[in-house]
Amino acid sequence: MSTDFALAARLDDLRREYDDLKARGLTLDLTRGKPSAEQLDLSEPLLALPGEGQHTAEDGTDTRNYGGLSGLLELRRIFAELLDVPVGQLLAQGNASLTLMYDTIVQALLFGVPGSDRPWSREEQVTFLCPVPGYDRHFAICEELGIRMVTVPMTPDGPDAEAVAALVAEDASIRGLWVVPTYANPDGAVVSETVARRLVSMPTAAPDFRIFWDNAYVVHHLTDVETPSVNAVALASDAGNPDRVFLYASTSKITFAGAGVAFFAASPANIDWYQAHLGIRSIGPDKVNQLRHAMFFRNADGVRAHMRRHREILAPKFSAVGEILTRRLSEAGVASWTEPLGGYFVSVDVVPGTASRVVQLAKDAGIALTPAGSTFPYHRDPQDRNIRLAPSMPPLDEVRAAMDGVATCILLAAAEAAAAITPSPAADEA
Amino acid sequence: MSTDFALAARLDDLRREYDDLKARGLTLDLTRGKPSAEQLDLSEPLLALPGEGQHTAEDGTDTRNYGGLSGLLELRRIFAELLDVPVGQLLAQGNASLTLMYDTIVQALLFGVPGSDRPWSREEQVTFLCPVPGYDRHFAICEELGIRMVTVPMTPDGPDAEAVAALVAEDASIRGLWVVPTYANPDGAVVSETVARRLVSMPTAAPDFRIFWDNAYVVHHLTDVETPSVNAVALASDAGNPDRVFLYASTSKITFAGAGVAFFAASPANIDWYQAHLGIRSIGPDKVNQLRHAMFFRNADGVRAHMRRHREILAPKFSAVGEILTRRLSEAGVASWTEPLGGYFVSVDVVPGTASRVVQLAKDAGIALTPAGSTFPYHRDPQDRNIRLAPSMPPLDEVRAAMDGVATCILLAAAEAAAAITPSPAADEA
Repeated sequence: MSTDFALAARLDDLRREYDDLKARGLTLDLTRGKPSAEQLDLSEPLLALPGEGQHTAEDGTDTRNYGGLSGLLELRRIFAELLDVPVGQLLAQGNASLTLMYDTIVQALLFGVPGSDRPWSREEQVTFLCPVPGYDRHFAICEELGIRMVTVPMTPDGPDAEAVAALVAEDASIRGLWVVPTYANPDGAVVSETVARRLVSMPTAAPDFRIFWDNAYVVHHLTDVETPSVNAVALASDAGNPDRVFLYASTSKITFAGAGVAFFAASPANIDWYQAHLGIRSIGPDKVNQLRHAMFFRNADGVRAHMRRHREILAPKFSAVGEILTRRLSEAGVASWTEPLGGYFVSVDVVPGTASRVVQLAKDAGIALTPAGSTFPYHRDPQDRNIRLAPSMPPLDEVRAAMDGVATCILLAAAEAAAAITPSPAADEA
Repeated sequence: MSTDFALAARLDDLRREYDDLKARGLTLDLTRGKPSAEQLDLSEPLLALPGEGQHTAEDGTDTRNYGGLSGLLELRRIFAELLDVPVGQLLAQGNASLTLMYDTIVQALLFGVPGSDRPWSREEQVTFLCPVPGYDRHFAICEELGIRMVTVPMTPDGPDAEAVAALVAEDASIRGLWVVPTYANPDGAVVSETVARRLVSMPTAAPDFRIFWDNAYVVHHLTDVETPSVNAVALASDAGNPDRVFLYASTSKITFAGAGVAFFAASPANIDWYQAHLGIRSIGPDKVNQLRHAMFFRNADGVRAHMRRHREILAPKFSAVGEILTRRLSEAGVASWTEPLGGYFVSVDVVPGTASRVVQLAKDAGIALTPAGSTFPYHRDPQDRNIRLAPSMPPLDEVRAAMDGVATCILLAAAEAAAAITPSPAADEA
């Protein structure tokens, strides 16, 4: 309690510091993992591609016309190499992997998946396991679609595989597990091969359990440690559960967010299932945009080189976050945070019970943070402790200013909490 | 029966003619309403738009980043004028109106629509009224989603409104009516204001009945009679049923098929409903493609002028179809066909019971036609009579060659049918 006491003693100082912060009238935003304008500029040549007269795919397809449900082969080939899946098991689709995830789950609800006894919507209950902290939009999809969410802990090697295995072995309503395998949102964890092998081979009570393997940050390295993704589709096949994995990826944070291309990879049976229904709702994806991307990247090394240019822009921002949090908070011991090797987020654990207060204090000082609880299903962080920071979008000086302000808010909230549980001199007298 | 007898007598001649046709080894395709390469060339400047450095919308939005669920205002304004709906009630979305239709119906199944007592999937039965002949992909959506289809006749003024009104008044399971209001697929009919008023004002047993108003050919005129579309959204509002109409359109047959922009218009309550769910599955449409289109068109007159250039390419093909069918078939009286003022199709009614035979004969002669029955739910044309011709894609000389072949097949099938019901000399002797 010496720390609490020391903190409580700093309360007045911290209040003054916070008032100074507010007086600066900042307008800063660390809410979402959006690429910055400087990053988007890296892909500016896309805006003039494919160029007049350039509309023919390598197989002779006129990309300007209908057709080609699977997407353009030359682009699929590039991402098949990056995702380490056979090109025949990889589809290039629309502008968002989020939409692909939603649509494949809806398809499962309406029709079931290969191995289902019936459509998921006809089951008494459908449950997804949600590693926490996790990605709020995954949880929002489940909430919207009436899918029950059960949390499991994240570890530095990915979801707690033993906890997952114990649950899926017993509960036949569990049909899904969310995984962000590489540089997870928000904690940056990378799924180890050991964890991946356990997840694809564990027995499940449900015959049609799926892992929703959202490889959103597969090539989004922040250091020269370019951690390779575990090949979950192949591992599942090796384990005798070929249909277990639905893999998603996109170029949203490679080229343009919202004007990129999303990818879906899975077993041949899953791909056939997806395309059979897709053929009713689509006459093919935007192949011109896929051609545009294929011309821009040329090959997988083109993507890798492009991502190193992103890293040059992003790495200093992440360094600034770590540096400022260390300088401002490590002595007080009121928070712990991740130092991710990739991805878009820093996950901060503050003094339990103060995350909401920190976000509110920051908001009142003009610094927008993702709402507390966002990294948990139903926005309920049981310990009110986790805050997700997204430093990609603002310029570096704004990241610095914002983080300094956030540190002040974390300290003030911690001091307030300490004061509330530390007998004050006044209380002693009373 | 004199016609039958005369036709039967021509059987041998027609067989020889058909053998000559087959001997030509044609490979022609009139199956789908796809734009031709020449039409696609009209939009070639899109391939270099918006151009480097051009990524900012008129409201300052960076189109390269996430956001903007409703779509780009400058593009919505152009199509709001063309579709005659308030821009606030018009959304610019992804690359296909077919997908929008599918997704809005799925949303109705999962959640219900404004006015629903419960999700449509919880109803005992959901029925859609399907004017016939109609669009095969509409019917395929219903079939896929387990929606019962009940046919109503088409008239030159659109769906038979009295037949529709009688059914919806009685049957509470009827939740939808498909309408292609302008230059219908396949018969080219245009919904009159009288029919539209009846459809939007008729009492319905279901509280949440919707008209799926697929205005796919709203600006796709083939003559200088540029038939304006009835404004169904406004009429429904005037009639006190503001939420009755879901309107769809797209640029698929204006710019690039599959790389265009789709639109959804409806009442404010419907738009709110759609967007509330959309916000869970999407972080916004491809705004760069929308900016590209807005820059290319500039304004509604730009679209109108562009469509006149399409007309210059398409009109001669449709004239050729009419001319060849008239020359080859009118004397024999074995078929009737539409002479549409717009759209992409010619609908031919052949001798009842012979449509499948005509399509098979054409196929064997290297001329691909849409399968017989395609214009009816479940591919079942009760009279086996209707054939949809799509002359847009092949060059004019191929359209001519294909139509001459199709005429031969129609005559031969009619002669075969006539011979089967006309006592032959051999049959007399037996």
